[in-house]
Amino acid sequence: MRHLLAATALVTCLVAGAAGANEGKLDYAHQEKWPSALDRAQSPIDIVTAAAVAADDNEPQGLQIWRSVSPIDKVEDNGHAVQVDTHSTEAMIRGRHFTLAQFHFHAASEHTIDGKHYPLEGHFVFKAQDGRLAVIGVMFAEGEANAAAQTVIDDLKPGADVAQKTIDIGQLLPKQRGYYHYLGSLTTPPLTENVEWYVLPAPVTMSKAQLDAFLARYPRNNRKLQPLNGRPVIRYGN
Amino acid sequence: MRHLLAATALVTCLVAGAAGANEGKLDYAHQEKWPSALDRAQSPIDIVTAAAVAADDNEPQGLQIWRSVSPIDKVEDNGHAVQVDTHSTEAMIRGRHFTLAQFHFHAASEHTIDGKHYPLEGHFVFKAQDGRLAVIGVMFAEGEANAAAQTVIDDLKPGADVAQKTIDIGQLLPKQRGYYHYLGSLTTPPLTENVEWYVLPAPVTMSKAQLDAFLARYPRNNRKLQPLNGRPVIRYGN
Repeated sequence: MRHLLAATALVTCLVAGAAGANEGKLDYAHQEKWPSALDRAQSPIDIVTAAAVAADDNEPQGLQIWRSVSPIDKVEDNGHAVQVDTHSTEAMIRGRHFTLAQFHFHAASEHTIDGKHYPLEGHFVFKAQDGRLAVIGVMFAEGEANAAAQTVIDDLKPGADVAQKTIDIGQLLPKQRGYYHYLGSLTTPPLTENVEWYVLPAPVTMSKAQLDAFLARYPRNNRKLQPLNGRPVIRYGN
Repeated sequence: MRHLLAATALVTCLVAGAAGANEGKLDYAHQEKWPSALDRAQSPIDIVTAAAVAADDNEPQGLQIWRSVSPIDKVEDNGHAVQVDTHSTEAMIRGRHFTLAQFHFHAASEHTIDGKHYPLEGHFVFKAQDGRLAVIGVMFAEGEANAAAQTVIDDLKPGADVAQKTIDIGQLLPKQRGYYHYLGSLTTPPLTENVEWYVLPAPVTMSKAQLDAFLARYPRNNRKLQPLNGRPVIRYGN
């Protein structure tokens, strides 16, 4: 059903586009009346793995991340999520340079993979010089304890004397860097459609106690799934 | 004044963003009431050259274009512009692979450079596998005749027997590939904000008769200038 809906939306979109192009002259004297479609590329989405298309051979190398051991600028509860601000981790993402600005967590996961939610999803928000955002989405499952997750939990507690000053972000990313990529949006207001998404399907583990520490603050802070509206989802290296 | 307005908009935007993050919990039970800002990155803009920031050293090579002699799929008057559909010209644009889908012309130019309009602006619309659009904007000034422009003019005439079947798109691009880059939108409905703009400030010439042939069909099909709203404009190789 989801496939049918997506296909229908795509056809509607294409027909509307074709009609707009051929229906006649645009009224340049009354541009304020032009129709717009500025809310059709929203996030999160359900990733239907069977519908994802393989990346072309001419796609550049995917994600390279370096300086992953980063000073922590701030660990905070920002009112809707637990967030860590940082500034020194860098990435080349499909050929372009980005810097990690912050990462935060949603429960349950915002993206789903073939309809499956994980208990927690981390969003690693990278920014480029031109203002483009690239967010790497990481799924967290219950399993072995995670030292970097513990650093976040410890730094949230009042009393900064025992706070860790650095964090190894590499411990919060899976070793397998294959991804699903699509063009989307912020998942909190202002919902800006300036975001390239890279969702890593290989989960990273935290212990039950660690997951519970995140869920105690925000048992539910995930936006509902948004329609794909014909956007391609690209599979790389999976 | 333009600088002041842009700076004010940026500050407003940053304050609004900060307030949104700290003001309190988001209401995940009533997500349909969330505020959004989905029309703040529109095109065209006035490019204030003194306010553009130089590209970082870690920015990859800018624009490489190949297979510029391309078969013509169709030359058409689409109801609001003269457009040439094509499919074989390729580009690496800041590290990613794109294919040229079509190019079309606006009179007067949609972008302005320090407030200056050119008589005509060509938009070369490249598309990537993920649906990202990158449009190269070229300014046309009166001067020497342009063989590729004449091909477009000739192919618009009724009677396809004499139509040219290929076009050298390289003749419609300046030799100097320095650009001003920013994140923007389509300039006709649906005004989608899925467009990376690369505006080349070095103009290309057409003869007066050639410019007149374009302007006879569309003496004015340019969208009004849109507010920058704090977006950075990056200068590369100029």
